[in-house]
Amino acid sequence: MRLCLFNDHRLGVIEADGVHDVTTVLKALPAKEYPFPHYDLLVAALPDLRPAIEEAVRQSSPIPLDGVQLLSPVANPGKIVAAPVNYRKHLEESIAEPETFSRAHVRQIQETGLFLKATSSLIGASEAVRIRHPERRTDHEVELAVIIGRTCDRVSRDQALSYVAGYAIGLDITVRGPEERSLRKSIDTYTVLGPWLVTSDEIPDPSALAFSLDVNGEVRQSANTRDLILSVPELIEFASSFYTLLPGDILLTGTPEGVGPIRPGDTMNAHIDCIGDINVSVVE
Amino acid sequence: MRLCLFNDHRLGVIEADGVHDVTTVLKALPAKEYPFPHYDLLVAALPDLRPAIEEAVRQSSPIPLDGVQLLSPVANPGKIVAAPVNYRKHLEESIAEPETFSRAHVRQIQETGLFLKATSSLIGASEAVRIRHPERRTDHEVELAVIIGRTCDRVSRDQALSYVAGYAIGLDITVRGPEERSLRKSIDTYTVLGPWLVTSDEIPDPSALAFSLDVNGEVRQSANTRDLILSVPELIEFASSFYTLLPGDILLTGTPEGVGPIRPGDTMNAHIDCIGDINVSVVE
Repeated sequence: MRLCLFNDHRLGVIEADGVHDVTTVLKALPAKEYPFPHYDLLVAALPDLRPAIEEAVRQSSPIPLDGVQLLSPVANPGKIVAAPVNYRKHLEESIAEPETFSRAHVRQIQETGLFLKATSSLIGASEAVRIRHPERRTDHEVELAVIIGRTCDRVSRDQALSYVAGYAIGLDITVRGPEERSLRKSIDTYTVLGPWLVTSDEIPDPSALAFSLDVNGEVRQSANTRDLILSVPELIEFASSFYTLLPGDILLTGTPEGVGPIRPGDTMNAHIDCIGDINVSVVE
Repeated sequence: MRLCLFNDHRLGVIEADGVHDVTTVLKALPAKEYPFPHYDLLVAALPDLRPAIEEAVRQSSPIPLDGVQLLSPVANPGKIVAAPVNYRKHLEESIAEPETFSRAHVRQIQETGLFLKATSSLIGASEAVRIRHPERRTDHEVELAVIIGRTCDRVSRDQALSYVAGYAIGLDITVRGPEERSLRKSIDTYTVLGPWLVTSDEIPDPSALAFSLDVNGEVRQSANTRDLILSVPELIEFASSFYTLLPGDILLTGTPEGVGPIRPGDTMNAHIDCIGDINVSVVE
């Protein structure tokens, strides 16, 4: 199942004939008083809501996909965790270009660990990346994004995939420079998630997905998740050994070689097999 | 005014005679349906709610302070931003001990920038710090915490303090090692905020606060916020040049010299002038 949030946070299901509006199902989620949950209520409830969603699809007429504004398919992530230099060839290109990739940040992932991106940086596929520091180099990074489905504390790699709600395309937009990743990659609009969440039953093996990113039609990145240094299960094991992952937490698995600059006026097209495509504008 | 959240998220005001339960005021905050706000609804509404809170204090009887469980005074922070090595003498002690302070992380704050801590790491003063990796060195770091009061995007240092809702004591508990700060400092329970939020009208100058931390009665850290390398207004200017700060976002301003290990069984007592004291247990 491919779930999207669109327009003013309507819930949709993507089918071959378009988007089916199943917003009525959200009525099953209770209204809450302050303080609000620290996890995503919809993602946590997905297994329970699925029969109702499927029924709502059957009762709805499709809307053309190109007529809707796609938001981030996760509205309330508690945290966005990301993996640095998790493809061998990206590590090699980083080592080869010291004037672009600050020395302090080019180390193996097992040593560097994971970093955080601010949830305030998150947008969906129909929104635009707004360049905030035009005087500095800003790069595209395409990655497989994993959405955690249930509370996940110190799980082993063998069990890890059972905690996954689904997958999406992630763009980890990055200002180059000396600052820590959690600052340079947390600028407003610098995390793109989309176009929708593909539930994990449709992707039994996240370690065999071809993916790519073009800028203005020119291929920049092209790789396969089989080349991840730490695989999806290993990343979940590693992350949950430090902190509890909650439903709706987003795990960006790292970008392959080919990262490069983007500028206002550019359009990024990203594709991941079994998920789909996103087209994201870059603006001033 | 000193505002606390206690027990099962009751709202309290600290007066000389104890805690006044003003939870009834929270009824003014609207219940919300999914998706929930990305900022703290109570902190955002504080200026409007203040007359009702003051009236509720007058109509309530005090509860003894030692009879309540103090939670984090901010329940729904969107992000926790923290400043690395923001006191000269802490930078010097870090440089002097390369076996403890990984080389990649010891640089000036203007170069390192700010980092993020996971909101899932946040606890209040009555909760305990649970050591997660007993085989590694885990340190106390006491700091002045700033709570942002309203949306703050690219503000100058001259205007910055007008965006502050209040202040609290922050503990930035830290596992030493090579990983990025946003991982090592984001372990569950490794961010303590408390004992309450002191509204900014009671602290006109956050750059002149003496503060200290004892472990089991022995003084470990003792400093004054006048020695910050980047002051509170400068930190807000710097942070908001990268991303939008939202009501309830927490800014930890950095720790002074004297950081050192904590172990299960220890008790940390931290004090900041004009704010108060917290006593936090360390457990396995």
